[in-house]
Amino acid sequence: MTPFGELWDRSLRNLLADAGRAALEDAGIDRVDSLLVGNMTAGMFVGQEHVGAMAADAMGLLGVPAARIESACASGAAALRLGFFEVASGAADLVMVCGVEKMNDVTDATDALAAASDREYEAYYGATFPSLYAMMARAHMEKYGTTVEQLNLVSIKAHRLGAKNPLAQFRREVTMKDVENSPMVAEPLRVMHCSPVTDGAAAVILCPLEKAKDFNARPVKIAGIGAATASLALHDRTDLCSLEAVRLAGQRAYEMAGRKPEDIDVAEVHDCFAIAEIMNIEALGFVPEGKGGPAVEAGETDLGGRIPVNMSGGLKSKGHPVGATGVAQVVEIYHQLRGESGERQVDGAKVGLAQNMGGTGASSVVHILEAI
Amino acid sequence: MTPFGELWDRSLRNLLADAGRAALEDAGIDRVDSLLVGNMTAGMFVGQEHVGAMAADAMGLLGVPAARIESACASGAAALRLGFFEVASGAADLVMVCGVEKMNDVTDATDALAAASDREYEAYYGATFPSLYAMMARAHMEKYGTTVEQLNLVSIKAHRLGAKNPLAQFRREVTMKDVENSPMVAEPLRVMHCSPVTDGAAAVILCPLEKAKDFNARPVKIAGIGAATASLALHDRTDLCSLEAVRLAGQRAYEMAGRKPEDIDVAEVHDCFAIAEIMNIEALGFVPEGKGGPAVEAGETDLGGRIPVNMSGGLKSKGHPVGATGVAQVVEIYHQLRGESGERQVDGAKVGLAQNMGGTGASSVVHILEAI
Repeated sequence: MTPFGELWDRSLRNLLADAGRAALEDAGIDRVDSLLVGNMTAGMFVGQEHVGAMAADAMGLLGVPAARIESACASGAAALRLGFFEVASGAADLVMVCGVEKMNDVTDATDALAAASDREYEAYYGATFPSLYAMMARAHMEKYGTTVEQLNLVSIKAHRLGAKNPLAQFRREVTMKDVENSPMVAEPLRVMHCSPVTDGAAAVILCPLEKAKDFNARPVKIAGIGAATASLALHDRTDLCSLEAVRLAGQRAYEMAGRKPEDIDVAEVHDCFAIAEIMNIEALGFVPEGKGGPAVEAGETDLGGRIPVNMSGGLKSKGHPVGATGVAQVVEIYHQLRGESGERQVDGAKVGLAQNMGGTGASSVVHILEAI
Repeated sequence: MTPFGELWDRSLRNLLADAGRAALEDAGIDRVDSLLVGNMTAGMFVGQEHVGAMAADAMGLLGVPAARIESACASGAAALRLGFFEVASGAADLVMVCGVEKMNDVTDATDALAAASDREYEAYYGATFPSLYAMMARAHMEKYGTTVEQLNLVSIKAHRLGAKNPLAQFRREVTMKDVENSPMVAEPLRVMHCSPVTDGAAAVILCPLEKAKDFNARPVKIAGIGAATASLALHDRTDLCSLEAVRLAGQRAYEMAGRKPEDIDVAEVHDCFAIAEIMNIEALGFVPEGKGGPAVEAGETDLGGRIPVNMSGGLKSKGHPVGATGVAQVVEIYHQLRGESGERQVDGAKVGLAQNMGGTGASSVVHILEAI
């Protein structure tokens, strides 16, 4: 994983090369059989499509089959899922999955991101992502009594952990006052409830389990994968408070892995906005529906809590280069399951979950990883 | 496959629904396990990413896992390749692969398409796709003696066959004079050597071979798949006249299928420009290197010739909705192998090949299909 942040001296091509070469070096190989790149919208951010071919070129992998996978902010995990199938099909032994986004070379990141919503029926009428998530937050507060203070606590936790992550964009703690005094973006969401605009990339290499020890003394197993969709537009959902695609994706991943929510030792969930972390821990079954806010307040999702969530600092503090996020989440879980996360380490973590989400939850992909 | 053309009354969403529902109806099913959508740049064309989720929504497949696959103009075939792996892995029994592009709602299609080239090192310096292919054509003419008349014959054949294709964008024959008198775009390429800007979509449904007869009395088998990359920028190639990614992709597909170029009864190749058809039939081994022009002149690639190429009318006459093209090529081969192509039918075709390409050949995907 590259450092996440405003990387003015790294282009899209540089980021691909940085993450890709680091992954190859870590695995001790100089070639893969196939390359998949998760990327949301290099077209709108830097005018570049054909990102798979660019990646192969930039990584010194010319000739290798390459394609880009997109599912808005869930692009990284969507790419990982398809890479898994490629290995599982027997067609490839070594597949690199890279996620990347270069967001800081564009004048209107909000417009590019709005391409993840329903352009015709949401964005054209003025809805932006902060406003869509603000509506979800309002509905959740109304239905379940979730409080602004609980939202604040999500961000405070994120920054406290992100401050310990050397690759995070914002390595500083924030106080309740900092959050309360940050500018309002879309009521009730303030700047400090919103993930930032970030450049970054991350890459992992997949291979059949029985061959993994040839490349890595302590590989991590992908035990479960689930993916699902819900309506593209928020107004088509039956319930604004429930992330149906996340619930379904989680259920499918648990089923494939033969696991239950109680088995998960550490999780990375998609906290593009503070309310999303609360809704996602509910949808994944870590807490009952409507109980996300109180769980955060009780410290259940903190380091040392019942179900530690976003030990990386989450999208809020680590940063959110949209197409890279899903892969970066898996990188965090990989290190957690190997006990390499330093001050952010969840003691004895053996089973981890990474949940990535697109738009207002129109798509989601969940991976369950296990130490072996 | 939808009609291809300037479809002012069909949006991106409509096209997805049209092709997807038609495919479901043809298979007699109302659900698939997974959906992959090939699309080059709905972001730059109509401001919409998250096209997989939109497709699931538009096709009435809410909940189904969905993602978009992009490899510039090879997006459709890149999606089909990954759909094949998903079925082959055992993770899914029914996978829909849809390709789509809505190109006529944008003011600057040339700029959106330039995202398939190397934006930093080609497009920013003024290179457009016609100019890049014009350089390839000039190099081919210089090295092998390929003539403008041979380029013209590619287009004349395309239009003669496309006139017989009820779904083609340009259903009219053109004469040598028509081609010669058409406006120059980038010397030596005239308008009549260039594929058009097109709206359209196509969809296929994949399943394990042993279950195919449950859905279709005469299914078609995917016998071989090959994919490869070459340098993103044209100036990085060792030879402007040779499409290395196509050669490699073809070689891999032949190997997987246990087939040779001589076994192919009918082929769809990526004729985004007339020179591309000539270079592709060389790269695929249908004719020796440098002999593409003379082969066209001798009628070898025509209906009734030794290796009939682009019986659909090709990208030139059928139209080229970039993300849909790779899937539409496979739709043509499917019908050819079932003997359903009417006046364009290649007698007794049993083995077909579809070759899709991105950019100036920085990526290519080849599928070999067989009647069973």
